[in-house]
Amino acid sequence: MSTIDDLTARIRYVLVRTSHPGNIGSAARAIRTMGFERLELVTPARFPDREASALAAGADNVLANAGVHNDLIGSLAGSSLALGLSARRRGVNLPEISPREAAQQALAAAARGEQVALVFGNERTGLENEELARCHAMVRIPSVDDFSSLNLSQAVQVMAYELRVAMLGDAPAPTPPVHGEPPADAARMEQFYVHLAQTLDEIEFHKGREPTTIMLRLRKLFQRAQPDERELRVLHGILADAQRMAGLAKSK
Amino acid sequence: MSTIDDLTARIRYVLVRTSHPGNIGSAARAIRTMGFERLELVTPARFPDREASALAAGADNVLANAGVHNDLIGSLAGSSLALGLSARRRGVNLPEISPREAAQQALAAAARGEQVALVFGNERTGLENEELARCHAMVRIPSVDDFSSLNLSQAVQVMAYELRVAMLGDAPAPTPPVHGEPPADAARMEQFYVHLAQTLDEIEFHKGREPTTIMLRLRKLFQRAQPDERELRVLHGILADAQRMAGLAKSK
Repeated sequence: MSTIDDLTARIRYVLVRTSHPGNIGSAARAIRTMGFERLELVTPARFPDREASALAAGADNVLANAGVHNDLIGSLAGSSLALGLSARRRGVNLPEISPREAAQQALAAAARGEQVALVFGNERTGLENEELARCHAMVRIPSVDDFSSLNLSQAVQVMAYELRVAMLGDAPAPTPPVHGEPPADAARMEQFYVHLAQTLDEIEFHKGREPTTIMLRLRKLFQRAQPDERELRVLHGILADAQRMAGLAKSK
Repeated sequence: MSTIDDLTARIRYVLVRTSHPGNIGSAARAIRTMGFERLELVTPARFPDREASALAAGADNVLANAGVHNDLIGSLAGSSLALGLSARRRGVNLPEISPREAAQQALAAAARGEQVALVFGNERTGLENEELARCHAMVRIPSVDDFSSLNLSQAVQVMAYELRVAMLGDAPAPTPPVHGEPPADAARMEQFYVHLAQTLDEIEFHKGREPTTIMLRLRKLFQRAQPDERELRVLHGILADAQRMAGLAKSK
């Protein structure tokens, strides 16, 4: 049985392309008040920064231990569930869940020993479609339509609060995993997508169509399936054979 | 029956002896995102103030209409239920309730036509005993003991969020389908599995291994993903190209 400390340690908060260092500090404070420690930063505009430290208001360890990454994938390493916060209403082909549902899902995954990422976009532009494509669901804080944008650290606070309440509440019994083995982590999935893209190229699948659109569509599909390591090996094997055939076909 | 607008109009947020005008602005933005408009200020250190306006980020009406009072009593005029936010553990002879319970109580009162106040103290010192004595219950956000103090506007955001969620009803809106289009039906999936099996054969994937086991594994994977028609078309396209390459390779 996992303790609250085990669960909190498996949950990370990822801030993507944050413009204002003050928001990083406020987010550090927000998660710390709710018992969390793990902050990951993807290409922050300025970090470390005096303003971040000032607004952390004592959550110095959170800032000191924050990871800084060149891309979202790096920040998701080891995690098998990524939930992206967004105020968007449409155009994103992802399941939309509430913060409360997100907390339940995150906790259930953490209780199974998985690592979970809550992902927050840039203050002005939010998460890009490509970034959301790396997430398994979109979390929408139920703001009003005519004034929908929460301050970044406020969104972090709401999510951290819901997670804390969920942890203190009916500590979820570890639900059986969706399938036998744990899903592959983000880095493995990324390797697979690279292999898939190469193969599509080599078997001349695109024929002038836009590869990006197709790859986003395929990412969503496999994201939903959450393949485990064994399944990924099978898929890699299929791709390798298709590549082999393409190589033979062209060596004529 | 009260509408959501009736209910929100009956709920006010009272900030007592706020030191930093930025927090007033952030609080205005926080309540506005959750549909609230009514802010009351008791002896703020500085108001109006440029920093408050900047951090309100467009919630200008909330600031413009904010009442400014000489004492807490003035700010509570007309209200019959006052709930005071506090991180204190003891020494206060008041029922202690959670933000979620507070939201339920506030909503029940508003639904009866009563006016409700959520009361927030000074950033550093919180609410004084005399101020808490004017409240009907103390609301404690469940922060961790060793880092219990939320930023003022974060506490406002959490409370406004809980009220908003309570208003939208416990009954969550019917969740949208996992993705935009309905999943393909069983007959279509069967066609896909037949095509997949043929392709694996043609690219010589099995190499003496048992095809049935692999196909069962792949079925489970795609079953979980629940592809829609458009996604199935993409997958069929990929298989067709792999078959074409295998054909070319063998025609040598």
